[in-house]
Order: sequence, then structure tokens, then C-alpha cells
Amino acid sequence: MIANSLPQLWIYDTTLRDGTQREGLSVSIEDKLRIARRLDQLGIPFIEGGWPGANPKDVQFFWQLQEEPLKQAEIVAFCSTRRPNTTVASEPILQAILAAGTRWVTIFGKSWDLHVTEGLKTTLTENLAMIGDTIEYLRAQGRRVIYDAEHWFDGYKHNRDYALQTLETAIASGAEWLVFCDTNGGTLPHEITQIITDVVKYIPSGTKLGIHTHNDSDTAVANALVAVMTGVRMVQGTINGYGERCGNANLCSLIPNLQLKLGFQCIEENQISQLTETSRFVSEVVNLAPDEHAPFVGRSAFAHKGGIHVSAVERNPLTYEHIQPQQIGNCRRIVISEQSGISNVLSKARSFGIELDKNDPTTRKILERLKALESEGYQFEAAEASFELLMRQALGSRRLFFEIRGFQVHCELGQGEENTSALATVKVTVNGKNILEAAEGNGPVAALDAALRKALVNFYPQIAAFELTDYKVRILNGHTGTAAKTRVMVESGSGHQRWTTVGVSTNILEASYQAVVEGLEYGLLLHSQAEAAVIQF
Amino acid sequence: MIANSLPQLWIYDTTLRDGTQREGLSVSIEDKLRIARRLDQLGIPFIEGGWPGANPKDVQFFWQLQEEPLKQAEIVAFCSTRRPNTTVASEPILQAILAAGTRWVTIFGKSWDLHVTEGLKTTLTENLAMIGDTIEYLRAQGRRVIYDAEHWFDGYKHNRDYALQTLETAIASGAEWLVFCDTNGGTLPHEITQIITDVVKYIPSGTKLGIHTHNDSDTAVANALVAVMTGVRMVQGTINGYGERCGNANLCSLIPNLQLKLGFQCIEENQISQLTETSRFVSEVVNLAPDEHAPFVGRSAFAHKGGIHVSAVERNPLTYEHIQPQQIGNCRRIVISEQSGISNVLSKARSFGIELDKNDPTTRKILERLKALESEGYQFEAAEASFELLMRQALGSRRLFFEIRGFQVHCELGQGEENTSALATVKVTVNGKNILEAAEGNGPVAALDAALRKALVNFYPQIAAFELTDYKVRILNGHTGTAAKTRVMVESGSGHQRWTTVGVSTNILEASYQAVVEGLEYGLLLHSQAEAAVIQF
Repeated sequence: MIANSLPQLWIYDTTLRDGTQREGLSVSIEDKLRIARRLDQLGIPFIEGGWPGANPKDVQFFWQLQEEPLKQAEIVAFCSTRRPNTTVASEPILQAILAAGTRWVTIFGKSWDLHVTEGLKTTLTENLAMIGDTIEYLRAQGRRVIYDAEHWFDGYKHNRDYALQTLETAIASGAEWLVFCDTNGGTLPHEITQIITDVVKYIPSGTKLGIHTHNDSDTAVANALVAVMTGVRMVQGTINGYGERCGNANLCSLIPNLQLKLGFQCIEENQISQLTETSRFVSEVVNLAPDEHAPFVGRSAFAHKGGIHVSAVERNPLTYEHIQPQQIGNCRRIVISEQSGISNVLSKARSFGIELDKNDPTTRKILERLKALESEGYQFEAAEASFELLMRQALGSRRLFFEIRGFQVHCELGQGEENTSALATVKVTVNGKNILEAAEGNGPVAALDAALRKALVNFYPQIAAFELTDYKVRILNGHTGTAAKTRVMVESGSGHQRWTTVGVSTNILEASYQAVVEGLEYGLLLHSQAEAAVIQF
Repeated sequence: MIANSLPQLWIYDTTLRDGTQREGLSVSIEDKLRIARRLDQLGIPFIEGGWPGANPKDVQFFWQLQEEPLKQAEIVAFCSTRRPNTTVASEPILQAILAAGTRWVTIFGKSWDLHVTEGLKTTLTENLAMIGDTIEYLRAQGRRVIYDAEHWFDGYKHNRDYALQTLETAIASGAEWLVFCDTNGGTLPHEITQIITDVVKYIPSGTKLGIHTHNDSDTAVANALVAVMTGVRMVQGTINGYGERCGNANLCSLIPNLQLKLGFQCIEENQISQLTETSRFVSEVVNLAPDEHAPFVGRSAFAHKGGIHVSAVERNPLTYEHIQPQQIGNCRRIVISEQSGISNVLSKARSFGIELDKNDPTTRKILERLKALESEGYQFEAAEASFELLMRQALGSRRLFFEIRGFQVHCELGQGEENTSALATVKVTVNGKNILEAAEGNGPVAALDAALRKALVNFYPQIAAFELTDYKVRILNGHTGTAAKTRVMVESGSGHQRWTTVGVSTNILEASYQAVVEGLEYGLLLHSQAEAAVIQF
């Protein structure tokens, strides 16, 4: 631990350039601007915005940032060196990077002789000239230059002397930072340490060094950490580890490791507490489901199961948590599962605003009901709304918003998807009135959801704002074929709120029906609590 | 690189115990048996099967393995030490672990004084007795013991002397392996190296050591690697890194790093080439979508975009790939490449005994149909029966065993599981005759399967021997709620034969119907081929 000295580290985010190389990820200029502003707010000092010479959309992005600049971050434009046998002044990619109008530019060049001769099909000497010319030209135009040494570690292993020459050329031409890139992601931590320790013997002392790693060996974060421990002071990565193939080093893991564990100064304390929110914001903007199991910022990162475990963590969080989740804006979560004990039930109830007594027979009743349902295949870990309804039922505080008297579903199959029809009818009693309704849908679950809403909306107009946002099906014992038990999880939403309910049956429609009905009931419960709160104050 | 000596490493898989702690993952006994047999086939030497003292379902799992043992792997039962102030002979959790009947057991004990006094609420001396008694007792009962030192690294930092005493006790009582567990996952690679290097000074030389890491700091794989580099020879982890919170060390990353890069012998060469398939098999069985960006085994792990890049990688794969994907059973994927598609189709057709010509327009037609269906959500990797029917359709050799004229399903819901009824009617033409049949089932899919069989069995008596052996459902785009597309996979069987068919629709019953109908059709096709073969010879 070197927490006392608080040495400075420079985080360099490349979510907007390398991150967008992830298969299945695409962003508009608007998306990129929103992410850039959020990263600025997080206190990231360098934000790589794109490659204006390769992607025309990026040009516009940089222009828009000129109109409305970031608050503290340096926005960086990215580009390769000039191509073989061209001159810098006639090279359109360099004209494009100058037009981006940034103070800082990052230039990447080839370190690996094989890539020069086989990829670029040029000579080793010409590659050195390409690096030197390009950096000198950009310096002469008033730009500050970061040099990304592409395929550094492979190049170094293959032809150390040539690799070192490329670095010397970059330094001599005026690059301020040299960044070691593990472009194929194949290098392991001990090799990073060995190679950087060796390299620093050959370059002027005080040269500012950076690291850029990929996760192909599942060691991107560790590789960046060991590089920092050998003296590197710039760390490149992306939010949520987005990137080509297996992704880049994940800044959401690197920042807390570097700042909270190794004692480096990366961003301010009030900024690091925005990390979880920033991670989720970026995943929302790029429209990818957040990784619930992501280190530090995932929804499960501080989730606890098991009875003894839970009572211990509440007495002394240090015993089961490597950092305090609130430091990075995440929170502890107690999970209800098969191994649950009384203490889980108590602490879960507390989170729903229900105070239970450990010695109250009702508490034990809830636990027993829970275990019985779980042995039937129910699972409440992710269906907290159903769990709350179960608790209220046991406590006698479940409100009967409606009662289903009958439910039928009818499907015509095999007519091709467009002609397939599903029809549901429901008989329901609300406030003593019997309602009969029917509705169609493009599947039986959609039809039964529609019929139920139609029957209830006149009594509870708020139902119009509820929507089914996710639907999951799990066959519990597949080996009995279609007679298997089915568990259905339904996520419902209203505005920003989300809640999940569960149903289990050998009949997939019965299971869906249970989850859909509880989803509507729980929504009505939430709404009535919000109304009660308004009346109270 | 130490590739010449090929030192042995012991991989210890805990997917079935620690892996199942992952939030949202639950497995049946059947699932666990299938995974255990697959890991056995992969050549994993130690497979931790569960904690019979804590989970009654695990008891049955071990019993079933006694009936039909694994081929090469040691199945290991897991348990804590006896509890404070009990005797080993009266401790039910130890009786349960003995009843599991395994040769090897893993016992975990507390290394961290804080957990002893605050968690277990006992004395440091009693904790040592608990470790010693338990191991001695199990040794006396003829078991070989692996000792998991829980919270090792935190315990060591907190009270080194006490932590060392727990290890000494375990060794003295007869534990064969000592495993350093980073239970909270907060330790960074350099600390692992420092602590293990220090510990080995205090324990008898030659003591066999293991490592068990969690991914809370995003360094689980690196932590295990650096431990191996300090002399540890057992590595614990899970397939796909499943595990509590952020998961365990991922064996799908560790095995190739250790074997292909560091030159250790973990499993055989022909076994390591099953790694990608095993990863996907396990994710299928636990019904979690595979991580496409997973290092080594992910679908995107060796995906290449862009022209120059692609031609370079084809000329010399070394330039852009850190290992050869086929070594671990993965493949290079050129994003959007028709050529690779054609060769897939050709080689797939060959496996069905159909010779296709690359230049035949039918081949291209099959490819186009395949791409169109895949973009709708069909997946044929695991549904080869549906793929063969698709090819026969394109070649004009699909035999019409029956034609469906109409299919209807009707369900009464919300009557409680026992009263719920599902009824299906089918109108089908066979050999020019129209048949109308109806059947009930405990769910709509069972009902439609029953109705169809009833209609066909007089024409094709062999249908009586077919059965639906597995049924899987996946929601393809969950975020549109119940209007989401559903993919259903149905596995059918007859005797020893198994075949899988697929259906996709926004209507879950329509998707099931497609898969069930193709399942029966393919069974009839197989049967008619077998008959033809009998007639021929």
C-alpha cells in the first residue's frame, strides 16, 4: 500500500473509439456526445473521441465539441501515422485530424517488424520515417502528441532492437507520452512486468509512459495494474470494458483498484462515487444490458446469500466485502434464496419498509412458505415483488385489488406467424363488480395481459402506464419433456420503476399468468403507496 | 516460457458448488449429473459436486454418481469443519459428507481471526480444534482431505501468526492439499505473490498448495496465474467463471493460459480442444446466454473485421491472434463473409450424408435461407434435425409424412395447478385421409404433442416409441416484454437416438408447435431410413 503519497495517475478513456469496436455496439453522434459529457463529469482527464480520418461521423463529433467544449477533460483525436511513401502535408488522414481542432492527438505506429513488412508491405526504415514525420508535423502544427506503440509486447518479443528504435523515434520527434499497447491481448502479467522493466533501461529517465491492454487472456485489468506498479502513469481503457473481441481493460474495475486499493489519485472522491451510475448510464446509451456480475459496479457485486453470512456482514461489512460499495456508488444487496435463513428474511423485510420480529411466529411462517415454494421451483432472488406479496400475505397486509374468477386462452396454430392468433378471456371481480373481457395478442401471454388490463383499467387508470419490460422462461427439469415444470419471470415497469414477479407450473401459460397477475398487483401496490405518501406530507 | 518441462497442474472444478452460487443460476440434479459427466470427459481431475450437509438435493446427486461413477475424475464432497462446541461423531454435517461416499473431501475452515470471534462467536483455540478434529476424523474414516483456507489473504494480513497456525493444524491432522482462498475477491496479483512467497517459508517444503480466487477485483484469473508462478499446483475455478457476486476464476481462461502459454500439463491436447464446446454446453444446461465476448471461448473472441486485417490474418494468423482458435475448439470468424458460410454448409451437409456442390445454385439457396432464418432468431448449431429438414426442402427431397390442416390449443387458467387444463385439437391429412383428434395434457405443449401422436399413430405405429426428452425456451429480445420472440428447442428420442428441432415465433405455442411437429417428422425420417437400410442389405 502506498496510500500516503497519493501519486497522480492519468486515466485515458477510449470507450468512444476502441469501445465502439465491440461487435453489436453502435452509437450515434448524439450518443457519443452524451457519453463524452458524462465522462467529463466523472473527471476523466483524457477522452479519446474517435478517428476522424477513418470515420466521417467522427469529424462532426469533434466539431460539435468545439461549439460546446467539455468542462475539464482533454478530448483527443486518434489517427495512424502517415501511410508508406506519402508526405505528411498531402496525407488526408492527417488533415482530418488537424481539422478536429483538439489540443491533443494520439498517433499509433507499428512496433512489430512483421506488421511493417507483412501488413504495411514497406521497409523497416520507412516505418521509422512514418512515425517521425507524423509526430514532427503535428508538433509543428501546435498539437501535443501521445504515441500508441501498437503490438508493443509481441513486437518486443519478436525483434527487441527494432521495437526500441520505434520508441526512440517517437521520443525524438516530440511525443509526450509513450503508450505500450497489447493489441492482440495475449500478454500475461509477468511478461508485462518483465518487458516494461527492461524497456525503461533504454529510454530517457522521466519519459512519461502509458499502458493499453485488451482482455483476450482475461488479464486486461491485471496487466494494466502491474504496468502501473512498474512506473507507468497513464492507463487506457473503456467503460464496462467494451471493445473488439473480448474487450479492453475495464475502467470501472481499474479506477477503484488504482485509487481505493493502490492509493493513486485518478479522480476526486465525489467523482468516484458516480462510477456505478456512469457504468449504467453508458450501457443504457449504447443499449446493451448491463453485466449484473461486473466487478465493483454490477448489481450482484455486493449481493449476499446465506444466513450466517448475512448477519456477519451486517455486523461488520469488512468481513465479507473487499471495499465499501457506497464508495463507488453501488450498494449491498441481500438475496433471498434456497439457503436463506431468518436473518435474510428480516433484512429483506426491512428493505421493503416492513419491520419483522425474529421471534414472531409469522417470520418463521414466511421462511417455511419460502422454502416450500422454492422446492416447487419458485425463485425469489430476482423476483422481489413476488416475495414482498408473499410476506404481506403472511402478515395479513396484502390488499386485494382484484380477484380473478376465470381465465381462458385459445390459440390457432400453424398458420404462419402473421396469421397465428391468440385470444384470452378473463372474468374478474373488482369492488364487488364482475367484469368479463376478451383480448387478442400476438401470443397467448400478450393476450392474457391485454385482457386483464382491459378489465381493470376503468377501476385503476394507472394501469395504462404499466408495461411488461422483460419476460424470461426457464424449464426446470427438462428431461421430462413437455411435462416439465416451467418457471416464468416477468419484469414490469412504470416510468423509472421496475419490479419482477415469478410464476411456476407444468403449464407454461399458467406460470405466465401467475407472474403477469402479480406484476399488475404489485404495480397497483406501489402506486397506492406513492399516493399515500403524497397524502401524508 | 517453461514449455519444455511440462510440469503437472491439477485443475479443480467447483462449477457444481461455488458456481451455482451465482445469482439467477439454479440447477436440477439431472443438470448437475450432465455437467459432471461433461467435465469428466474434458479430463478435469477433481470435480467438486456439492455440499451434502447444507443442501439435501446434493446428497442424492452423490448417490446417483455412486450408481454410475465417473470415468476418470475424482468427485469431491465439500463441507465446513465441525461447528464450535460439538463433537465430530455427533455432527450431522460430517455424517452427511461421509454418506456421500467420495474418496476425497474438501473441508473449509476459518483463517481470519475476525471471522472466528465475530462470525462463529468462538475462541481462536476452539477454531484450531475444529479444523484438527474434523480432518483427523475424516482421515480416520479413510477419506483424503483437501483443506480450503477460507479468507486466507485477508486473514493473513490481519493476523499472520494465527493464520499460519490454522495451516499448521490442517497439515498436522492429515490434509493433503492446502488451498489459499481469496473468498472476498479483494486481493490483487502482487499481494498474492508476496503472501504465498512468504507463507512457503513457514510450512514444510513439498506441501501441496492450491489457489481459489474470486473476481471482485477483476483479477481472478491473474491471481491464480501468479499463484501458480510461485509454486502452487492446484487451481480451483468454474466453467464460464460462474460464481457468487462477480464469479470465480474462469477455467475456460485459466486452462489455455496455463497449458498453451505457460506450458503446464492440465488436460490432454484432444481434451483442450473440447473447451469451447464444454463452455457452451454448460451455459446451455444452466440456461444462461453464453458470453459472446468471453476470452478464448466466446463467439467474438477470434472475430475479425475489416479488409486488410482479414487478409493479413489469413496470410499469417500470428499477427492478429494470440493463440490458434482451433486449439481450444473455437474458430476464427470473419464478420460478414459469405465464403466461410458456404464451407460451413458443405461440411454440415456432408455430416448428414448429403454431398453438395459448391457451385450448385441450391447450395447458395440453402445458405441464403439459413441466413434469413438466423436473422429471425433460429439457431441450427444445436438443432441439426431442423437443419437437415431445411436442406432436404431446398433439395426437393423432403418427404411429406403428414400435413397439418389446423391446430388449436385451449387452456383454463388460474384454477390452481391440479385443476388447470390444456386441450388441443388437430386436423391432419395422412395419405389422403383427413383425421381430427383432440387430447388433453398438463400443459398446452404436452396437449398438442398428444393430439398429434393420437392422429398419426395408426399410420405410423413407430411413433409410439418416440418421446419428447427435453424442452428449452429462450426469449430472444426480452426488452419488448411478452411481444418478444421466443425460441423453443425440443429434443426427441427413440431408443438410444436423440434429435433436436427448433421453432421461433412471437407466440410461444407457435414456436413449440413448430419444434414438436418437426421432431415427429424427423423421427419418421430416421425410421424410414433405417427400414430402407434393412431392405437394402
